[in-house]
Amino acid sequence: MTDEGILLVVSGPSGAGKGTICNALRKLHPEICYSVSATTRAPRTGEIDGVSYFFTGEQKFREMIKADAFLEYAKVYDNYYGTPKKQVLDLVAQGHTVLLEIDIQGAMQVKSKYPQGIFVYIVPPSLAELSYRLYTRDTDSKEVIRRRLEKVTDELALAHQYDYIVVNDELPDAVDKVRAIMMAERCKLARNRERINTVFKKYICEEVHHHDD
Amino acid sequence: MTDEGILLVVSGPSGAGKGTICNALRKLHPEICYSVSATTRAPRTGEIDGVSYFFTGEQKFREMIKADAFLEYAKVYDNYYGTPKKQVLDLVAQGHTVLLEIDIQGAMQVKSKYPQGIFVYIVPPSLAELSYRLYTRDTDSKEVIRRRLEKVTDELALAHQYDYIVVNDELPDAVDKVRAIMMAERCKLARNRERINTVFKKYICEEVHHHDD
Repeated sequence: MTDEGILLVVSGPSGAGKGTICNALRKLHPEICYSVSATTRAPRTGEIDGVSYFFTGEQKFREMIKADAFLEYAKVYDNYYGTPKKQVLDLVAQGHTVLLEIDIQGAMQVKSKYPQGIFVYIVPPSLAELSYRLYTRDTDSKEVIRRRLEKVTDELALAHQYDYIVVNDELPDAVDKVRAIMMAERCKLARNRERINTVFKKYICEEVHHHDD
Repeated sequence: MTDEGILLVVSGPSGAGKGTICNALRKLHPEICYSVSATTRAPRTGEIDGVSYFFTGEQKFREMIKADAFLEYAKVYDNYYGTPKKQVLDLVAQGHTVLLEIDIQGAMQVKSKYPQGIFVYIVPPSLAELSYRLYTRDTDSKEVIRRRLEKVTDELALAHQYDYIVVNDELPDAVDKVRAIMMAERCKLARNRERINTVFKKYICEEVHHHDD
């Protein structure tokens, strides 16, 4: 038997920097597993089914929702996006670390389905900073940004549902902290019972051997 | 109000390498606070009262035991050694990280007095390795070493009382893991409630300002 791995959920308001943090963490720890999302949107040029996304018809997606096959899902404009439950939990059961980078609503869904996950809330240092980041990113309309900023105060109240909080003042510090959380969780006693038993048996055998000498 | 700091208890069987790990960690994090032990033994050349130890008469030490003034204490041969409770808990209350490097029996005493502490068990990779380390350290008699090795199997069973377990296979890895545990614990939500409230207030104020524009 192997000890369970970790489902590490990195979440936070839009623009908190969770994507950048997760990319940096993946570079440092290539053993971290990806979860491939399912979506009903059409593939874009270069996207590969089963790698970029599982491209799924809407009918099938709805069936999967009914069958409780998602850790979380959301409808964004006309398309569904979801994290297939079995794929993620199988990897965790095999002892792997799976990293999910998702928004607050998604994280709260994951928490209701898999409360053993490790939930990390990334806080941008201030709303002014967040606002600046969203505007300078220049990928969204001002109306979208305004709506997002209004959501932030509601979302901050949800921080209390998380296990850890990381303020993203300086990116390298924030990456170091999320990495520390992952490493520390791997050292948790509850996740090392099999390992302890192995070491323990090793000690006992050597102890017996020692007395035989 | 400040959030509480951390009492980090690094423990493990004799020869597991906890001293080396703690020294390395202190070099990386000079903000970590020392706890000065009390002892009834006579000062050695160069030792300074209140820095190396609090040198205490046996009468006074016994009174402190009665007054529950120690997080842990032990009698080693003819001398008492103890960790003064108030000194450590005051530092933690002020938000500091205090590192205690103690044996299993001491750690179990600390746990009974202050269960909120973070308890890390350092495991030497195997009994053979531990035995080798103890013998090559060459500071103890063979009889002392034999007694220590016999204690190890009993002590390993106590690993289950700890929060984290770190196998000291490679020193830099073990240091990195203990450091990760300290950093992760500092990011725990329960230790950042005041901080969240501050950020939250900042958001609210900026949000109001935002709407005033």
